[in-house]
Amino acid sequence: MQIHTEQQPAQTPADVPATTREIRLAARPSGAPTAENFDLVTTPIPDLADGQILVRNTWMSVDPYMRGRMDDKPSYIPPFQVGAALEGSALGEVIASRSDIPVGATVTHFAGWREHSVLDAASATVVDPALAEPDQFLGALGTTGLTAYAALTDVAPVRPGDTVFISAAAGAVGSVAGQIARLLGASRVIGSAGGPAKTELLTTEFGFDAAIDYRVGDLAGQLAQAAPEGIDVYLDSVGGEHLRVAVEAMRPHGRIALVGAISGYNGDSTQRGPDLFLAATKELTLRGMLVNSYFPIFGEYITKAAAWLADGTLRTKETVYEGLDQAPAAFLGVLSGANTGKMLVRLA
Amino acid sequence: MQIHTEQQPAQTPADVPATTREIRLAARPSGAPTAENFDLVTTPIPDLADGQILVRNTWMSVDPYMRGRMDDKPSYIPPFQVGAALEGSALGEVIASRSDIPVGATVTHFAGWREHSVLDAASATVVDPALAEPDQFLGALGTTGLTAYAALTDVAPVRPGDTVFISAAAGAVGSVAGQIARLLGASRVIGSAGGPAKTELLTTEFGFDAAIDYRVGDLAGQLAQAAPEGIDVYLDSVGGEHLRVAVEAMRPHGRIALVGAISGYNGDSTQRGPDLFLAATKELTLRGMLVNSYFPIFGEYITKAAAWLADGTLRTKETVYEGLDQAPAAFLGVLSGANTGKMLVRLA
Repeated sequence: MQIHTEQQPAQTPADVPATTREIRLAARPSGAPTAENFDLVTTPIPDLADGQILVRNTWMSVDPYMRGRMDDKPSYIPPFQVGAALEGSALGEVIASRSDIPVGATVTHFAGWREHSVLDAASATVVDPALAEPDQFLGALGTTGLTAYAALTDVAPVRPGDTVFISAAAGAVGSVAGQIARLLGASRVIGSAGGPAKTELLTTEFGFDAAIDYRVGDLAGQLAQAAPEGIDVYLDSVGGEHLRVAVEAMRPHGRIALVGAISGYNGDSTQRGPDLFLAATKELTLRGMLVNSYFPIFGEYITKAAAWLADGTLRTKETVYEGLDQAPAAFLGVLSGANTGKMLVRLA
Repeated sequence: MQIHTEQQPAQTPADVPATTREIRLAARPSGAPTAENFDLVTTPIPDLADGQILVRNTWMSVDPYMRGRMDDKPSYIPPFQVGAALEGSALGEVIASRSDIPVGATVTHFAGWREHSVLDAASATVVDPALAEPDQFLGALGTTGLTAYAALTDVAPVRPGDTVFISAAAGAVGSVAGQIARLLGASRVIGSAGGPAKTELLTTEFGFDAAIDYRVGDLAGQLAQAAPEGIDVYLDSVGGEHLRVAVEAMRPHGRIALVGAISGYNGDSTQRGPDLFLAATKELTLRGMLVNSYFPIFGEYITKAAAWLADGTLRTKETVYEGLDQAPAAFLGVLSGANTGKMLVRLA
C-alpha cells in the first residue's frame, strides 16, 4: 500500500480538520487481493453543500461481498473505481451539518473506508446510541444482523422443530443466525467454521448444538453425524462444497437461503455445484437475497435485536483492527476467515 | 426384449380373460436403457380380493421420470424391481369389481405397463368420459398437465407481463405450460425444443412467441436474441446447460420451477451446474416440485383444463405407439425426444 498526500485547501472552519485520510482502490486484484491493491491517501475535506453532513467516522465495517466490487464486471452493485475511495458501512459523529441532522448525532452510512465522510443527509441513518454500543450498529444491529434475520424469517423460514445448518457460523452473519434460528424454534442448530477455536465458540458462546470444522474435511460425513435425520434449513454464505453437501442432506421441502459464496469470490469456478435434480425431487427451495431488499423492516429488526442484546439473549463477538491503515489487512482477513464474529476497524 | 408365458390358472369367469400381458424390468440399465432391459410376459390375472377392481387398460403413459426408477437407488419414489412389472399412469375400463366402482366405469390409475390391472379401488380415480377424449386424461388432463399448471401458478408463479421460458417445450408438460403461461398473462413465451419440426410447432400450434432449437447450439445466444431483456420465469425439465443459461438470463427476482432434469437421467453428471451466486445476487428462487403434492387441486385443475380443451384455448399433440409390445420403444423414444406432445401407448 502506498501513502500519498494531496494538496491541501486554503481555508477551513476552526473545529473541522482541513484534511482526512481515505483508502482507495490502487489496482484491481487478479485472484486473491493483496496490500498492493490499496492506497492510503490524505485528501482535503470538501466544503459542505446544502443538505450535506460531515461525519467523523469512529467505526467501519469490512465484509466479504466487497471483494466482488473490486472486479470490473456488472453485478447487483457497481464496481469500485480504480483511484477512488472504497465504500462500505461506517458509523460516526456528525461534526458539521447543512441539513436537519444536528451536529453531535450518531449516524451510520455507506461512505466508509475514510476517517471523515461528506455525504447527503438523506444517505445517513441517525441511530440511538442509548440502544447499544456503537459498534453493534455495524454488526448485530447492522446489515449483517438484518441479513441473518431476513434469511431465517423470510428467505428460508425456520419453523419450530427444524434442524438448521449455518455456514460460516463463527462469522458476523452466521453467529447471529444460529441464535436467531434458536429463537425461531429450531430444535437443532448446526454450524460450520474453520478450526477448533471457532468451532468451540459455536457451542460454548453462540448456543449451537453441534459444530463442524470444515478444515478437517469430509463435510458430508460430519454433517450426517451432526444431523443424522437431515436438515430443514440451510443458510449458505459459502457456496461450493458446503452448498452441494447441504442439498444432499436436505429433507423434503427444505429451504436454502443463498446469501453469499465466499468460497468462490476470488474466482475459483472449478467447484462442482449441487445436484439440482435432487432439489427437484425433494421439493427444495433455494432462494437468493440481498439485504437491501429488507431495509423496510430494518427499524423493526433493530428494536427486536437491541432488546435481545440488552437481556443477553443475543451474544456477539468482534474482531477489531485499529486504525484506517489496518483496514486493508482487516479486509484480507475477513476473506480468509481470520475473524471471529464481526470484523471491524476502529478509527482514531 | 424376451417374451415369456407363465402357467395359466385353472378357472376364470366367462367374461374376464384368464391371462394378461405385462412389461417387466428384465435388468437394470447402465447408462441409456435398451430393449434388453424389458420382458413382455403373459401372466394369470389373479382373483379379485374384496375392495378390488379389474381394469382393461386402453391407454398407458410413458414418461421420462421412469428412467430414475430403473436405477437401484433411494429417491422420492421406490425403484422398479427386477422381474416385476413396471408401473405408470394408465386409463381403462372396469370389467370386474368387488368395490363400489361399477363395472363399465372409466378410471385412471398407476398400475400401467400391463393390459389388465388388478388394484384396490382406492388407488383408482373415476373420470368423466364426457369431459374429453380418454387419452387426454393421461396428458393435458393428467399429471403432465397438472405439472405444468402447478409449476406456473405455484412453484414459479407467472405474473402478468412476464417473459417466460419453457424447456422441452414440444413435450407433454412443456406444450401445455406454454399455453398456460399465456393464459396467466405472460407477455412473451419462449420455448426450446430439438429440431426444426418441433420448433415450428411451438409457434404455429402452441402459441409460443419464439422458439429455440437447442440442437443448433449457442443456447445462451439464442435465448438472448429471443428475450433481449431477460426472463422472469423458467420451467426446467432439462437441467444441465438449459438451467445454467436460464440462471444467467434471469431478471432480478426471477423464478425457476425445477420439474425434471432429463439431460442427466442417464447418469451424465459431467454437466456444469448454474452459477448460484448469481442466483443470490439476483434474488432468484429455484424451487423443486413433485406433482403428487398437487393432487389436492387435481379436480379443480381438470375442470379448468377440460373447458380450455373444449373451447380450443388449449391445444394438444400426442405421439402414439400401438400395442403393449411397443411400450419399451415408446419409453426409449420419450427419453431421446422422439415424441411431440404427450407420448402414449394405445393398448389393444
